[in-house]
Amino acid sequence: MQPIPPHLTPSRYPKRAAYDRDTINAILDEALVCTISFTLDNKPFAIPTGFVRHEDKIYIHGSVGSHFIREIEKGLPICISVTLIDAIVVAKSAFNHSVNYRSVILFGTPEKIEDVPQKIEAFRWLTEKFVPNSWDYLRPIRENEVRKTTVLAFSLDEASAKVRTGMTGDDEDKDLPVWSGIIPLETRRLAPVTEDLSEGIPLPPHLL
Amino acid sequence: MQPIPPHLTPSRYPKRAAYDRDTINAILDEALVCTISFTLDNKPFAIPTGFVRHEDKIYIHGSVGSHFIREIEKGLPICISVTLIDAIVVAKSAFNHSVNYRSVILFGTPEKIEDVPQKIEAFRWLTEKFVPNSWDYLRPIRENEVRKTTVLAFSLDEASAKVRTGMTGDDEDKDLPVWSGIIPLETRRLAPVTEDLSEGIPLPPHLL
Repeated sequence: MQPIPPHLTPSRYPKRAAYDRDTINAILDEALVCTISFTLDNKPFAIPTGFVRHEDKIYIHGSVGSHFIREIEKGLPICISVTLIDAIVVAKSAFNHSVNYRSVILFGTPEKIEDVPQKIEAFRWLTEKFVPNSWDYLRPIRENEVRKTTVLAFSLDEASAKVRTGMTGDDEDKDLPVWSGIIPLETRRLAPVTEDLSEGIPLPPHLL
Repeated sequence: MQPIPPHLTPSRYPKRAAYDRDTINAILDEALVCTISFTLDNKPFAIPTGFVRHEDKIYIHGSVGSHFIREIEKGLPICISVTLIDAIVVAKSAFNHSVNYRSVILFGTPEKIEDVPQKIEAFRWLTEKFVPNSWDYLRPIRENEVRKTTVLAFSLDEASAKVRTGMTGDDEDKDLPVWSGIIPLETRRLAPVTEDLSEGIPLPPHLL
């Protein structure tokens, strides 16, 4: 394993850090949205956007007219942050409260994908992350739609994860008759809601 | 209403932007975690952290030993991003897929809260955001815990929201026999799980 560069080493709870690709990939594949941070005129900006991981890269897309996309595609250094919250950790004191979370931070510069078949592949990965197995069912993508959309890729080379799991570790207060434990949080997909335009069209098998 | 500064005006879908405090507050009060972005040595950083809004400010806290807290408390310009995802918008084409979301972006510089009673108030707001009505039940906070924790406040003066709701607006493909609509997403709290240290201690009323 390569040495971990200092900007990937957390100053707090370094034991929570993880650099193995399986841990990082699992977080990236579950989260739908990341936050892209960059600096313009010495001012920090942070923009949420959908993304997909494929092999060793993260892909985002946006309109060719998007200010944010046009700025970062010049090759600005970026930091991408992804966070999943799994539970509220309720201790016997306010001080020891915490959150169980899984997060990834990634540093890099964007690589603009210009090759049309490769762009279309990225659209398929993105679409099927949000709606698995749906690509072949949809109206096929058009050349002008590909042209109107920028795709940027970011290498996972400088990615790291940070994970907290488990209970409070509230040992100093263990004899107090105050309840402690966790409140798990769950994000789930509810039943699809048909819009008026699609009244009478059956749900496709991949959405049942 | 004051004129909207250019960095708060989205380049895409300006109709989705909202600047009224009620819209902004509702998003900030529902989200548990924000992403704090800042620039160090021309490199962008993005760190997720819990936060609470109280009146016209956002409050975050962290260990006095945290590298990130020690850097930004010097008065670095920051950008805070908060995102809630409400639904996946499934169109008849991949191109028109979208996400219903509510997001807030805020620019500012941190104000360090030094006053001890004011710091304790901020801890109470933070704690009761995550676990409502729990403060008086917990082991009281200690002076050294207050001393070991930095509290930073950020004004909402330069905050803006961006919201997408509704269906696809898939008019160009409306005659295609392809299903479209939304898949709502829901994040919920599950039943509290008691840890070993608290075996036999009844759940307090605010957690029932």
